[in-house]
Amino acid sequence: MTSNHNLYIVVIGCGRLGSLLANKLSNEGHSIVVVDISTTAFDALTPDQFSGFRIEGDATELGVLKQAKIDKADVVIGATHDENVNIMAAQIAKNRFNVPKVFVRIIDPDKESFCKAIGIECVCPTTMAAEKMITSLKQNPES
Amino acid sequence: MTSNHNLYIVVIGCGRLGSLLANKLSNEGHSIVVVDISTTAFDALTPDQFSGFRIEGDATELGVLKQAKIDKADVVIGATHDENVNIMAAQIAKNRFNVPKVFVRIIDPDKESFCKAIGIECVCPTTMAAEKMITSLKQNPES
Repeated sequence: MTSNHNLYIVVIGCGRLGSLLANKLSNEGHSIVVVDISTTAFDALTPDQFSGFRIEGDATELGVLKQAKIDKADVVIGATHDENVNIMAAQIAKNRFNVPKVFVRIIDPDKESFCKAIGIECVCPTTMAAEKMITSLKQNPES
Repeated sequence: MTSNHNLYIVVIGCGRLGSLLANKLSNEGHSIVVVDISTTAFDALTPDQFSGFRIEGDATELGVLKQAKIDKADVVIGATHDENVNIMAAQIAKNRFNVPKVFVRIIDPDKESFCKAIGIECVCPTTMAAEKMITSLKQNPES
């Protein structure tokens, strides 16, 4: 698997973050399966970018993850608004199905250390936004 | 005003992002006023970090912004969950009170170009999180 390889990616959650990732990654040529508990969420997938699969279901249920062929996934991304769902699905992906790369979006910055402790890569948009603003203030306070 | 200067910063919205910024920036020695429509939001301000002021009110009302002494502000940060509130307050800060540095958090990535067009610096946590994940995938697809 290299960076130019076509990856098989399971995206859990089709909100703003999940749909953005699914659209972009599908458009880049990767094979995408998006899982969401609500079919209306899939409206955010744009036909000119997204050519993957949609699965309606609860990503904390093993049957749903199996339906998404998580055992074949190169990457699993937990992108729902519920960080517990993201972390739970990521743990199943990593520990039961040996998925090589697992990401989760977390909401509460305090969960970052928990994710690191269990070996899951996490991204906290709130922390990132705060850091970007503080860095910009320090570098260029008047622009 | 230099990067080491004590800045007067008005933070609008005391949710996760606003409170994180208010706590950090106050702890760094800046003078902070936080505005939120709900007093319970201020519970996220931690006494060991935050030593600024709290104002309960709607930041799209001129009287509330004046109460926050926005005319003296070096920086205004629109950090509520409603990007329209953030953009509106930022426009007042920039155009009416000539605040030198104005940031807004936006929720919908499509609003980025609108903010740029009106000269307001915006940060979209969703876009940042997606970019971080995609970059990490490209750089190191198996870690």
